[in-house]
Amino acid sequence: MKLTVDGRETDLPAVWWHSEQKIVQLIDQTKLPFQCSIHSCKTYLDVVDAIKTMKIRGAPSIGAAAAYGLAQAINEFWGKDDYLSNIQSAYDQLLSSRPTAVDLKNGLDYVREIWTDSAKEAIVYAQKFASRISMQGKKIGEVGKSLIKENMNILTHCHTGALALVDYGSAIAPLIASWKEGVRFHVYVDETRPRMQGRLTSWELRQYGVNHTVICDSASGHLMATGKVDLVILGADRVTRNGDVANKIGTHNLAVIAKYYSIPFYSAFPDTTFDINSESGADIRIEKRDPQEIYEVRGISTISKEQTSIQAYQDNTHCYNPAFDVTPAELLTGYITPHGILSKQQLIQKYMN
Amino acid sequence: MKLTVDGRETDLPAVWWHSEQKIVQLIDQTKLPFQCSIHSCKTYLDVVDAIKTMKIRGAPSIGAAAAYGLAQAINEFWGKDDYLSNIQSAYDQLLSSRPTAVDLKNGLDYVREIWTDSAKEAIVYAQKFASRISMQGKKIGEVGKSLIKENMNILTHCHTGALALVDYGSAIAPLIASWKEGVRFHVYVDETRPRMQGRLTSWELRQYGVNHTVICDSASGHLMATGKVDLVILGADRVTRNGDVANKIGTHNLAVIAKYYSIPFYSAFPDTTFDINSESGADIRIEKRDPQEIYEVRGISTISKEQTSIQAYQDNTHCYNPAFDVTPAELLTGYITPHGILSKQQLIQKYMN
Repeated sequence: MKLTVDGRETDLPAVWWHSEQKIVQLIDQTKLPFQCSIHSCKTYLDVVDAIKTMKIRGAPSIGAAAAYGLAQAINEFWGKDDYLSNIQSAYDQLLSSRPTAVDLKNGLDYVREIWTDSAKEAIVYAQKFASRISMQGKKIGEVGKSLIKENMNILTHCHTGALALVDYGSAIAPLIASWKEGVRFHVYVDETRPRMQGRLTSWELRQYGVNHTVICDSASGHLMATGKVDLVILGADRVTRNGDVANKIGTHNLAVIAKYYSIPFYSAFPDTTFDINSESGADIRIEKRDPQEIYEVRGISTISKEQTSIQAYQDNTHCYNPAFDVTPAELLTGYITPHGILSKQQLIQKYMN
Repeated sequence: MKLTVDGRETDLPAVWWHSEQKIVQLIDQTKLPFQCSIHSCKTYLDVVDAIKTMKIRGAPSIGAAAAYGLAQAINEFWGKDDYLSNIQSAYDQLLSSRPTAVDLKNGLDYVREIWTDSAKEAIVYAQKFASRISMQGKKIGEVGKSLIKENMNILTHCHTGALALVDYGSAIAPLIASWKEGVRFHVYVDETRPRMQGRLTSWELRQYGVNHTVICDSASGHLMATGKVDLVILGADRVTRNGDVANKIGTHNLAVIAKYYSIPFYSAFPDTTFDINSESGADIRIEKRDPQEIYEVRGISTISKEQTSIQAYQDNTHCYNPAFDVTPAELLTGYITPHGILSKQQLIQKYMN
């Protein structure tokens, strides 16, 4: 992705291997959108820490970071005594650095295949794993851009960009691909409380100069009712066998309102998001996250201009914080995948065969 | 309303006349929900300042404060030289203390009727004006409580409480009236970005011990889809002749989703909210407020515990901040008014005759 680090414009993925310095580097997402800086991981333990502290986030990006971290450990311990027990320990520590994401295990297992064969190849494997993710995003961009027309107003929710998918992103990818080809449109970016991932989306769109406006999550109904939204594109956290989509809380709201006003509504995602083991959205347990995410808002002090956070609620206010919701397949117009824009029937046919 | 000031439980409206000290007093809303304190206005100029700085807010409460402020000015200048020019100046300053609300002018004009007759009567008039507002809220509470059943889950949006309507409130009034009678239920309180009026609703419900949970505005779809909401009640800023309801941004979202899931959806409001001069929602110009409201979030510093605010977005992030939206009459189940729970036809019949 295009970005500016220390005043210099450059092009970097969310995480990568610095081959001269033999370190893992990543864009520190905890400082965004206020500051764009590169974080260096000198050993795999730094990678564990970067994942734990959410310097890197977004399930696919975490998977890539873990793959790089394990490759780094393999190189660190290669040829030494207790090589196997050391890299097994690295594997375990990386695996437990975040609780849920399946991508994390996928990334580690991909590199594990080679870990007794070649230290150098381990790096190549990690790079292949990361590249496969970003290529899926690139494909989604190419596929999805046919939906984007001149002068459209497009609404998106949460953050589905390069930071989360190593590069390119999912729902963001068609927007940037179209913009690069000279199509001019405007994006409404949902703030996406509680964690305000809209800030990251806004930051990524800004890198490419894409026209966009941040709105509060509750403004979408007004915009759709008054003809200000032509298309809704967002990502997915999990897509089940019947085409139901689990995604960031608020997706369901947008889907119902878009349906009411007959506005096309698409979910974009890479192959790994399709969950062959889940029959329908009813199988998905919605993650209830810490109410602290609602309580505490991060930003820049209006006095000191330093990054800080405030408590936005009274002590002991009872908050409920479901992280995701499930949108039933019948509310979706289609699915933007690396294999094309698919109807529900096509989606099932593609992934179930 | 029930509240605790300096550790002492008491019962106070949003604004009142302290007859011994001859001052206007009010609950300082800029410090809520973190601190509950009484602000004293020694002269009408202090009232002007309190309205300007939003120590008192909510159109009907502002109207009452202005009425008290003018009565206070009448008493200050009564019998002095230039009495008339002084109170005219007081009237003008109070009128321009906030730009829009019609209640402000109504309050001032109500007291103006008596301003050359009797200084003492001016106070009585202001009290009558304030009392009329709070009695409408009380009536809404009595009328609306028939909708509230044991074990219900009720969703509300924005702040529609005693702080804004001198006492009792609109959509909140039926909840508190039912709770006082021993009906036990649970309220989901929408955070209501950008200004987070959900904090005030939570604070008011807390005074009565009403079970409630704050949610992000985007969580309502998930809750409605999973059967967690039995009833939606919220207020109104303006109701037009065809029954369309202008209310806090996000109301439209809730109305569409409630309709989709066949959940009863009511708007509660006093007589002054019905606008006989507006044909339909299409006549209402939606107020676009300062994006600063999205940018800046007020709360308590997590370090110093002092009230402060943070900038939540990068500099120059383009934000769009419509304050209200319009919900078409066909999305409403009914209207909770001081005259009963009315259908659209009954509403029109009641207010248009």
